[in-house]
Amino acid sequence: MSGNSIGQVFKLTTFGESHGPFIGGVIDGCPSGLKLDFDAIQHDLDRRKPGQSKVTTARKESDIVEFVSGIYDGHTTGTPIGFLIKNKDAKSKDYGDLENVFRPSHADYTYHQKYGNRDHRGGGRSSARETANRVIAGAIAKQILAYYKIDVIAYVCAVGNIACNVDKEMSNESLRAVVESNIVRCPDEATAVKMISFIEDIKKNGDSVGGQVFCTISGAPAGLGAPVYDRLHADLGKAMLSINAVKGFEYGSGFEGTKMLGSQHNDEFVTEKGSLHTKSNHSGGIQGGISNGEDIYFKVAFKPVATILSSQNTVNEAGDNVVLKAKGRHDPCVVPRAVPIVEAMAALVILDHLLLNRTVKL
Amino acid sequence: MSGNSIGQVFKLTTFGESHGPFIGGVIDGCPSGLKLDFDAIQHDLDRRKPGQSKVTTARKESDIVEFVSGIYDGHTTGTPIGFLIKNKDAKSKDYGDLENVFRPSHADYTYHQKYGNRDHRGGGRSSARETANRVIAGAIAKQILAYYKIDVIAYVCAVGNIACNVDKEMSNESLRAVVESNIVRCPDEATAVKMISFIEDIKKNGDSVGGQVFCTISGAPAGLGAPVYDRLHADLGKAMLSINAVKGFEYGSGFEGTKMLGSQHNDEFVTEKGSLHTKSNHSGGIQGGISNGEDIYFKVAFKPVATILSSQNTVNEAGDNVVLKAKGRHDPCVVPRAVPIVEAMAALVILDHLLLNRTVKL
Amino acid sequence: MSGNSIGQVFKLTTFGESHGPFIGGVIDGCPSGLKLDFDAIQHDLDRRKPGQSKVTTARKESDIVEFVSGIYDGHTTGTPIGFLIKNKDAKSKDYGDLENVFRPSHADYTYHQKYGNRDHRGGGRSSARETANRVIAGAIAKQILAYYKIDVIAYVCAVGNIACNVDKEMSNESLRAVVESNIVRCPDEATAVKMISFIEDIKKNGDSVGGQVFCTISGAPAGLGAPVYDRLHADLGKAMLSINAVKGFEYGSGFEGTKMLGSQHNDEFVTEKGSLHTKSNHSGGIQGGISNGEDIYFKVAFKPVATILSSQNTVNEAGDNVVLKAKGRHDPCVVPRAVPIVEAMAALVILDHLLLNRTVKL
Amino acid sequence: MSGNSIGQVFKLTTFGESHGPFIGGVIDGCPSGLKLDFDAIQHDLDRRKPGQSKVTTARKESDIVEFVSGIYDGHTTGTPIGFLIKNKDAKSKDYGDLENVFRPSHADYTYHQKYGNRDHRGGGRSSARETANRVIAGAIAKQILAYYKIDVIAYVCAVGNIACNVDKEMSNESLRAVVESNIVRCPDEATAVKMISFIEDIKKNGDSVGGQVFCTISGAPAGLGAPVYDRLHADLGKAMLSINAVKGFEYGSGFEGTKMLGSQHNDEFVTEKGSLHTKSNHSGGIQGGISNGEDIYFKVAFKPVATILSSQNTVNEAGDNVVLKAKGRHDPCVVPRAVPIVEAMAALVILDHLLLNRTVKL
Repeated sequence: MSGNSIGQVFKLTTFGESHGPFIGGVIDGCPSGLKLDFDAIQHDLDRRKPGQSKVTTARKESDIVEFVSGIYDGHTTGTPIGFLIKNKDAKSKDYGDLENVFRPSHADYTYHQKYGNRDHRGGGRSSARETANRVIAGAIAKQILAYYKIDVIAYVCAVGNIACNVDKEMSNESLRAVVESNIVRCPDEATAVKMISFIEDIKKNGDSVGGQVFCTISGAPAGLGAPVYDRLHADLGKAMLSINAVKGFEYGSGFEGTKMLGSQHNDEFVTEKGSLHTKSNHSGGIQGGISNGEDIYFKVAFKPVATILSSQNTVNEAGDNVVLKAKGRHDPCVVPRAVPIVEAMAALVILDHLLLNRTVKL
Repeated sequence: MSGNSIGQVFKLTTFGESHGPFIGGVIDGCPSGLKLDFDAIQHDLDRRKPGQSKVTTARKESDIVEFVSGIYDGHTTGTPIGFLIKNKDAKSKDYGDLENVFRPSHADYTYHQKYGNRDHRGGGRSSARETANRVIAGAIAKQILAYYKIDVIAYVCAVGNIACNVDKEMSNESLRAVVESNIVRCPDEATAVKMISFIEDIKKNGDSVGGQVFCTISGAPAGLGAPVYDRLHADLGKAMLSINAVKGFEYGSGFEGTKMLGSQHNDEFVTEKGSLHTKSNHSGGIQGGISNGEDIYFKVAFKPVATILSSQNTVNEAGDNVVLKAKGRHDPCVVPRAVPIVEAMAALVILDHLLLNRTVKL
Repeated sequence: MSGNSIGQVFKLTTFGESHGPFIGGVIDGCPSGLKLDFDAIQHDLDRRKPGQSKVTTARKESDIVEFVSGIYDGHTTGTPIGFLIKNKDAKSKDYGDLENVFRPSHADYTYHQKYGNRDHRGGGRSSARETANRVIAGAIAKQILAYYKIDVIAYVCAVGNIACNVDKEMSNESLRAVVESNIVRCPDEATAVKMISFIEDIKKNGDSVGGQVFCTISGAPAGLGAPVYDRLHADLGKAMLSINAVKGFEYGSGFEGTKMLGSQHNDEFVTEKGSLHTKSNHSGGIQGGISNGEDIYFKVAFKPVATILSSQNTVNEAGDNVVLKAKGRHDPCVVPRAVPIVEAMAALVILDHLLLNRTVKL
Repeated sequence: MSGNSIGQVFKLTTFGESHGPFIGGVIDGCPSGLKLDFDAIQHDLDRRKPGQSKVTTARKESDIVEFVSGIYDGHTTGTPIGFLIKNKDAKSKDYGDLENVFRPSHADYTYHQKYGNRDHRGGGRSSARETANRVIAGAIAKQILAYYKIDVIAYVCAVGNIACNVDKEMSNESLRAVVESNIVRCPDEATAVKMISFIEDIKKNGDSVGGQVFCTISGAPAGLGAPVYDRLHADLGKAMLSINAVKGFEYGSGFEGTKMLGSQHNDEFVTEKGSLHTKSNHSGGIQGGISNGEDIYFKVAFKPVATILSSQNTVNEAGDNVVLKAKGRHDPCVVPRAVPIVEAMAALVILDHLLLNRTVKL
């Protein structure tokens, strides 16, 4: 109800502000009996953490997760998994000047209108720092999906106007290797170089730029999702739209598909070696809200982040028109760090539907 | 859980298949004391119903709603509103040939995989006929929103490659008048003519085409939504993605916004006549997941519908490769009929958040 | 949220007032593939319906259920099961005098305070007529439980001060036969005669009396329930307390168990023929909120119904002290008719936990 | 779904095992703007904590709560309140002998059957240690209720066969003073002495005994609750039945009420000084599932706890019949410590319905 939980069977609830002592979460409904790979969890956290490269914010957080329940002898027990991350580099004083000013395109004003108060130390609950919790829960979900041979992989497909081409024949292993080989997480090396150079320029100007993340889920069985409100892509869409800075979501043919004719767009079925497939995949692996066994794929749009270091006109809490000149650290382009977050949210949704689907037949 | 409900406080649950005796729904959580305008409800149903013009399917349904509970003396009582629509023109025999064939890009195969059975009479629960229920609930939600001076208006902004321009200064009343004056529900008369002509051509060929619907919510107060998972736009996105044939959702600057710099994209605050506003509205009326009092706007992508009248290769339940030649009726372009559905889903989400927001402060 | 649904996976939502055209419901999450026994459903409805014997109300309702969705060729499809019951003998004029009077110990006053309106035609949504819906959903749940060899059986164990003894060795079949052989549904013939005679006396005086219903669930596997909030007995308790006129719930040793010592109360485990059992069953088949494989049993307390035919002091809507002399029909003792309702609610809870339990392990 | 949350608007989710590093919880939906009295929270924790008197277990826990989010400058912010309690005196070795033995009437066996694993260090998630979290959330809920002039007070009304009389005319302040003046929390001094003496005898024998807790909620407005599934007393009942060792719940006239006639049981309405009241209160302040403005009261039955220090026959994980002789600490009678838990759960339910009730009218 109050919007700090996601999922039905595999359910994540999070808490914590960007400048409090801890952020953390509770995973309820994790199946018992999974041997956890803690290094893999930390690896995903490291892929998200600030300060990891020259194209991200300089805020330094070691982002070490501490599990406090739900795990015994390295295995999940079926009881709620509680976890904590200590906030270390919370420079609250950087925000001192902002105490009474509503930063443009931030959540300051709306948060204040909703709750009648505001945490001036950096966005409070609206900070993208909350997404570290999602990465932890998502990393556990990915391990369960891997047990069922389902793989989730995301990458940056565009930064500003610079978009990449991807070799569709690449295996997930090769794709993952090249994506993680460059700091923008783009699977096309030549484009990656251009993106990095562009972000560095933007950063020098104290400006920011948006981008897009592409995600593929392979190995999902047919039958996940539901025909009406809880369509698989509707839940994926909500999960993605709940990530900070996201402005759009499309799956399969997406917005381009609206320009096609049905005779071009329809995915013909074919039986090959006793197994049914579709020749094309404009459906994005989902038909009528339910997975069909083909690759599920979608794209997520991220706006340029609102923190920029140039002067901006705005209003303070007293209602006066004022000029804001932000100081401190900023993240010129969040999409490289968003990659593990998109993967995490995708894994949460797919796992939730995988578990839900166990209840459908007699 | 099983995905036939939407909303938390104002909650719609629906039932019924396209070829059963009735479809219907239950609205739980409708506030008591609203005098209902039944004509307005029927008007929205008429805007959605099949057979309304030469650019829609020829299926004829009178789509008269019967309310069976929750209303006394013309007013809502606070108890669940149950309602029914009789299915009249369910030509089940049109589907006889399809009994064992999976229609390309329909839900036949996925539905069969999920439930282990299939309603061969026209999509069963996957049929867009279910959306008539949404229009009823949405029409009631719109009346409550109107009581609070909140207005929801949608229109067709693109059919295939034909996109329209809209005069931004038009009042909602004028906009509504022009939108309803043509059968494609496009607010630009000249473009509407082109769209209609294009759809007629498509229809002759037994083909279909996609399109886009634009929606604006004006008058919503600041404070609706939540900062983490239940962001206002995430719930709007899920609601839209749950409509049949939808492939994408974007709000505010959307996918185009990913190409902008933060210095271009940020919406500066300004105080005018004692009231705070933003100069631009790339945020789409939502910042940090919470409404800021500006117009909320978004765009929804609809694929070309899967029913086309040409021959297609496909597979039957036995796994044989077969050729399908569909007969019967088809809808060459659903977006004109989707307009009231988009409005309905938007109204459901906004009203739900409006009611939820009453619980936030002491 | 608004309280007209029960269950998580197998979820019933109901609608309809006692004097509207229909009551009805939607079952979402019913597993697909069950061949329904419609006679069994009607049989349970008949066990609940008014006018079935001289010890119940004279209101006559045929209570024929019409299913409108979710069933195809006699089998459940996995989609929502919508159903309707027509209200026939709704003598609204009997209630004319009551229009402005709050009947003592009825829901008139509280309903009016909550919703700001009131359906004067007989309790509206507060009427026990709503429970017919529960019996339908429960009858379907019982059929699924029977498929898994789980049996639910209830009977009247007390009317006023008259309590019965039950032969603990009786099979469920024998127990069911004797319970249904008399109009108070008491498994002890001699006591049944006394109960009937007592109720007839009470009825002559226009008075009412309470009673208790005992229920046993046999064949449930170990593992249903959860260790914290959703304990199996907590969900059973809530379900029973949601039935009209219920004032208390106890399971296993119940209130008497509070007087015992741990050394008397503990149920020792023993292995017999390779299978683990408990020697005694003070636990009522549930330990730590989770079923242990023994019989689950509990008792439900029903107050005397509030409608009596003598003069009572009360207050009208204007706040005046007035005297109320009820006319019309009344139910001197509801417990015989409550038996199928208790069974239905028990079946809903057990089935919901049975389905939920499928998601617990890897 | 997985049963570690309670509440709809004001929602508590807990995590943590009795022998892990921490237990803790998240409160989602706490209204913003409440100045917290931290001493009052700690006071309730102290009333629940082990080792507080000679009639409770000797386990020593300082039970200091650490809040990590949702509070700023001493006030609630509207964001989730995360909190932790460190486990200090977790003598895991006391449980070494029990590793393979199912303790009679404990959750060992059922937990093992459900999850396929077991935390041998003291019950894991099934331990009543979890209830410390409830007391924290309940203490916050009580402060919000106090703001609205609603008061919750509970006490021990029976230990084994020893029941107490209470002076009905006592003010809540006087009642609270006398309840807290003795270590069994009984409001009748003379009875308290007998109870203490009885528990001391029981303790010497390594045995345990059950008891009953009585709770009153005064000041609740008319209108809380709902007429069908989410009746106020049904939610109170579920909350109470979710407390460890609870076997029964009754409100108002309860099980005794089943023996009364309607003419005796009905609560006549009367207007006094312009305000409506009932002369008697067999309804327990709730009619048709909705509060009527009178005192809400109910009784909760606690069984004797299962840990006793005498020899018991049981079975081990291998299925062998064995004899168990427990060592270590035990709690001869939990009801004195259960008093703040009952109050907490009552406060959670009442507050949740108070917030829900804000959404009911236009």
